[in-house]
Amino acid sequence: MWKIADTEVDSRLLIGSALYPSPEIMCEAIQASNSQIVTVSLRRQSFDGADGEQFWQLLKSLKLNILPNTAGCHSAKEAITTAQMARELFGTHWIKLEVIGDDYSLQPDPFALLEASKELIAQGFEVFPYCTDDLVLCEKLMSAGCRILMPWGAPIGTGKGLINPYALRNLRQRLPEATLIVDAGIGAPSHASQAMEMGFDGVLLNTAVAQANDPINMAQAMGLAVNAGRLAYEAGLMPEQDTAQPSTPTLGTPFWHQT
Amino acid sequence: MWKIADTEVDSRLLIGSALYPSPEIMCEAIQASNSQIVTVSLRRQSFDGADGEQFWQLLKSLKLNILPNTAGCHSAKEAITTAQMARELFGTHWIKLEVIGDDYSLQPDPFALLEASKELIAQGFEVFPYCTDDLVLCEKLMSAGCRILMPWGAPIGTGKGLINPYALRNLRQRLPEATLIVDAGIGAPSHASQAMEMGFDGVLLNTAVAQANDPINMAQAMGLAVNAGRLAYEAGLMPEQDTAQPSTPTLGTPFWHQT
Amino acid sequence: MWKIADTEVDSRLLIGSALYPSPEIMCEAIQASNSQIVTVSLRRQSFDGADGEQFWQLLKSLKLNILPNTAGCHSAKEAITTAQMARELFGTHWIKLEVIGDDYSLQPDPFALLEASKELIAQGFEVFPYCTDDLVLCEKLMSAGCRILMPWGAPIGTGKGLINPYALRNLRQRLPEATLIVDAGIGAPSHASQAMEMGFDGVLLNTAVAQANDPINMAQAMGLAVNAGRLAYEAGLMPEQDTAQPSTPTLGTPFWHQT
Amino acid sequence: MWKIADTEVDSRLLIGSALYPSPEIMCEAIQASNSQIVTVSLRRQSFDGADGEQFWQLLKSLKLNILPNTAGCHSAKEAITTAQMARELFGTHWIKLEVIGDDYSLQPDPFALLEASKELIAQGFEVFPYCTDDLVLCEKLMSAGCRILMPWGAPIGTGKGLINPYALRNLRQRLPEATLIVDAGIGAPSHASQAMEMGFDGVLLNTAVAQANDPINMAQAMGLAVNAGRLAYEAGLMPEQDTAQPSTPTLGTPFWHQT
Repeated sequence: MWKIADTEVDSRLLIGSALYPSPEIMCEAIQASNSQIVTVSLRRQSFDGADGEQFWQLLKSLKLNILPNTAGCHSAKEAITTAQMARELFGTHWIKLEVIGDDYSLQPDPFALLEASKELIAQGFEVFPYCTDDLVLCEKLMSAGCRILMPWGAPIGTGKGLINPYALRNLRQRLPEATLIVDAGIGAPSHASQAMEMGFDGVLLNTAVAQANDPINMAQAMGLAVNAGRLAYEAGLMPEQDTAQPSTPTLGTPFWHQT
Repeated sequence: MWKIADTEVDSRLLIGSALYPSPEIMCEAIQASNSQIVTVSLRRQSFDGADGEQFWQLLKSLKLNILPNTAGCHSAKEAITTAQMARELFGTHWIKLEVIGDDYSLQPDPFALLEASKELIAQGFEVFPYCTDDLVLCEKLMSAGCRILMPWGAPIGTGKGLINPYALRNLRQRLPEATLIVDAGIGAPSHASQAMEMGFDGVLLNTAVAQANDPINMAQAMGLAVNAGRLAYEAGLMPEQDTAQPSTPTLGTPFWHQT
Repeated sequence: MWKIADTEVDSRLLIGSALYPSPEIMCEAIQASNSQIVTVSLRRQSFDGADGEQFWQLLKSLKLNILPNTAGCHSAKEAITTAQMARELFGTHWIKLEVIGDDYSLQPDPFALLEASKELIAQGFEVFPYCTDDLVLCEKLMSAGCRILMPWGAPIGTGKGLINPYALRNLRQRLPEATLIVDAGIGAPSHASQAMEMGFDGVLLNTAVAQANDPINMAQAMGLAVNAGRLAYEAGLMPEQDTAQPSTPTLGTPFWHQT
Repeated sequence: MWKIADTEVDSRLLIGSALYPSPEIMCEAIQASNSQIVTVSLRRQSFDGADGEQFWQLLKSLKLNILPNTAGCHSAKEAITTAQMARELFGTHWIKLEVIGDDYSLQPDPFALLEASKELIAQGFEVFPYCTDDLVLCEKLMSAGCRILMPWGAPIGTGKGLINPYALRNLRQRLPEATLIVDAGIGAPSHASQAMEMGFDGVLLNTAVAQANDPINMAQAMGLAVNAGRLAYEAGLMPEQDTAQPSTPTLGTPFWHQT
C-alpha cells in the first residue's frame, strides 16, 4: 500500500492511455500492468463525438484513478484553462500539468510551469507537474505548494531511460519529503526498475507499452519491474565494489560465516 | 516453461548458495526468488562434518536442481577432479566450471577453461562454463561441446551490472543457438532485467541477494526482474528514439489512430 | 583566430583565476594554457588590501581579456550590483553572470539568471550567463539579448566531465547561432576535447588546473586538448560504426583504393 | 622522450598507413600527427608491382620506425610466415602480431595469438601483440616474453572509443611494467586522450584519421590529444567529486589560501 495525494493505491506504476493499437488493447494492457492511476489527455471535443464518449466509458469501466493531463499546452494560460475543463469533465482536482517549452524535445517550460502551478494550486488543484530534473525548479514548485513532482527520465517517447542519473539521484537526496515520480523516457523494464532502486516513489510511462509489439505483456513486464525495483530499494541494495569478492566458500570454512 | 540442459524449469533465474547470514535465510531467499536451479560449491570436507551434512539436507529439502560448481579451482586438473567429486556427491552430471585465472578479478582463465571443458565433456558432463564475454573463447567452448555458456556481466561480487553491454549484445547476436546465462556482476534488479531484455536465456547471481540487508525480499525482487526482462524481450521493446515523440493525441484525432 | 563578443582571440580555452597554490603558479599556468580570457571573481574588498592589489597587478601584467564574474551571488539584485562594481573596477562591460540557486550543487537559478540578464543587457553589459543545459532557459536568455551562453558540463569543481551529453548535443544543434561555451565540470583533457568535438565554441575551466599536482603542465594539457577537439570537429569526425571495419588492405588490392 | 622496445621516440602516437584517400595525403597526415612509428600491412605481392614499390619508397622517405603487421592472418602459422616475410622485407624484427579469430569483430584469437607469440619470440622478434583487454591473456603474453601489449579499445574501425574502461584501468593497474598501447577503436581525440590519462603508454590508430574529411588536420588533432592526455597523467588529474566545490573565493579570504 502506498499513498499518493492522499489516495491509497497498491501499484507504483502510473500509466498513459495514448497510442495503443485499439481501446480494447489499452484496457487489457492497463489491467495487465496492475496500475491504478491512468493519465488521460483532455481533447476538447473528445466528449462530443461517439469515439470520445466510448473511450471515456471504457476507461471508467476500469475503475481507476484518473489523472487528466494538459498535454499539448504551450502556455500557462492554456494549461490553466485545460485543467479547469478537465476538472469539470473528469470530476477530479488532480491535474498532470504539462506546459511544453520546445516542440522538438517536448521539454517542459520551467517558467510557465511554475506560473501555472501557483495559479492552479490557488484554485484548489492537486498539481502533478511534469518537469525537468532541475533542482532549483523542483524546489520552487514545492514552495508553490506541489507535493508531487514528475521529473523526466528522458524526452517523451524516446525510450532512452534515465539520461541523467546524477541529477535524478541528487533530486531524490535533496527532496526527501517530495513524492517523486519519474515521468517520460522509460523504454524498458530495466529503466523503470532503476528509477525505483534510486528511491523514486513511482514511474509514469506510456509509449514503451503502447508501442510494443505486444502491449499487454509489456505492460505486465513494466508492472513487475516497478515492484522489483521498489522491493530492492527497501531490501537495501549491495554497494558496488571495485574488485571481485568471492561468492564461494573457502575450503573448510562453514559457508555462512564468510564475508 | 523453459528448457536448460534438457530439464524443464519455470524460472530463468539461477541462484547461488553462499554468503547468506544463515542457512535458514538462504532457504527462504531461494524460495522467494522462485529459482529452481541452485549452484553449490563443493568443499572437499563439507560432507564429513555436521555443518556440511546439515547444509546439504537443507538444500535437498528445497527439491531444486543442484548445479555444483568448481569455485576456487585454479587449474584444469583441479577443476576436473573437483567436478568428478561433485558428480559423485551430488548425483548429477551438471557442472558449473570455474577455473580462476586471476585472484583479484576472479577472472576465468580462458585456456584452462577450454582444456577442462573438453575433458569433462568427454567424461559425459554437461558443462556450464563460467567464462568472459570473449566471442572467440565462446565459439571454441561451443565447438568443444558446450551447449550452455555463462559469460560474466562483471567480476564476481562487484555488483557493477553489465560492464560491457556491447560485447554481450554481440555474443547474443552471434551465438543464437547457445543457451546464454549472464553470470556474476549483477547487483540490482535493473541489471538482471537488462540482461534478459538483451535476449539472454537466464541470469545467475548470488552476492546481491545474500548480502542485501533483507535477502528474502531482494531474492523476490530479482525473480520479478528476470521475469520482467524476459516478458519485455518477448513483447518486443520499442526502439530508442533520438527526438521526442508525443505520447498524447492531437486535438480531434481519435487517439488510437495516431502514430 | 576566433571571435567572442566582438573580440578576436586565438585560444578557445577560457580559464579561471581561483584556487591556485600561489599567484605565481597561477600566472605561469594561465600562460601555459595559452588562454587569452581569464575569469576573475569580484571580492568586494579585494582592491582595498595589499593582497588584492598585488593580485590585480599580476593579472594585468598578463595582458589578457578579463571576464569578471559574479560568483557567490544568490539573487538577481546582488548579481546586478556586483556586475556594476566589476564594470567600474575592471573597466570592462563583460560579465560572467552567476546566480547560485542551490548551495550544494552551486546550480544556477534559472529564474534569477534570466531576470538579471535582462537588466544587465539593458544597462549595456555583454552578459555571459553561467547556465544549466536547459534548452528552454537558453532560448529565453538568447531572446533577452545574450549572444554567448555558458551551460554547465557538471557542477562546479566536480570534475565529472559532461554528465548529460545528450542535452549538450541537443543545445548545440538547436542553437547554431549562439556562442556556446561549456563551463564547469571539466576534470580532464578528454572532457575538454569531447565538448569541442561536439561543436561547442569554447570551454571554461578552473579547478582541474588549479588543483592538479602540477597546475602548469595541466594547463598546457587543457590548452592542447581544446585545440585538438576543435581541429577534429573541423576535420570531420568519423561516424561510429557498430561492426568492425578492417583498416588493413586485402591481398592484392592497392591499399588506397579500399573502403 | 619515451622508449619503446629500446627505441627512443618523442611521440606516443602510433599510426596506421591504410585507408587514406591517396599516398600523398597519407604522408602529410603522418607528418602532421608527429608520430614516429607507422604500422604497415604486409601484402605479399606488394613489392612486386609498381604501386607497392612506390608506396614503400614514400614511407621510407618519412624516415619513421616501421612496425609491420600481420593483418588479415587467421592462424598462428599464417601469422608466423607473414612475420618472417615482413622481417626480410622491412629489415626489422618488430612485428605487430594480429591473428583474427572472428571476421565480424576482427577480434584477436587469444589462443593463436599466444601460440604465435611464443614462436616468434623464440625466433628473435619483438612482438607487439594486438590483443583483447583480457588480463589473463595479457599475463600469459608477458610470460611468453612480450614486453609490449596492444589491447583493443573497441573493434577495429568502429570508432567507439574505450568500450570497457573498467577492464583497461584494471590492466594498467595490474601490469605496471608492461608497455601498454591502446590499439583500435579510437574515433576521436577525446578517446585518445582518455587512454593516455589512464596511464597507457601510447595509442595506435588509423581509421579515424584516414577516413576523416580532412585526414591531415585530424592527424594533428590526434597528436595533440595524445600529448594532452600524457601531460595530464603526469601532472596528476583531480579526483572526481560528488558534490560541487566552489572554484571562487569567499569574500575577504585571499583567494590562494582557499581549498
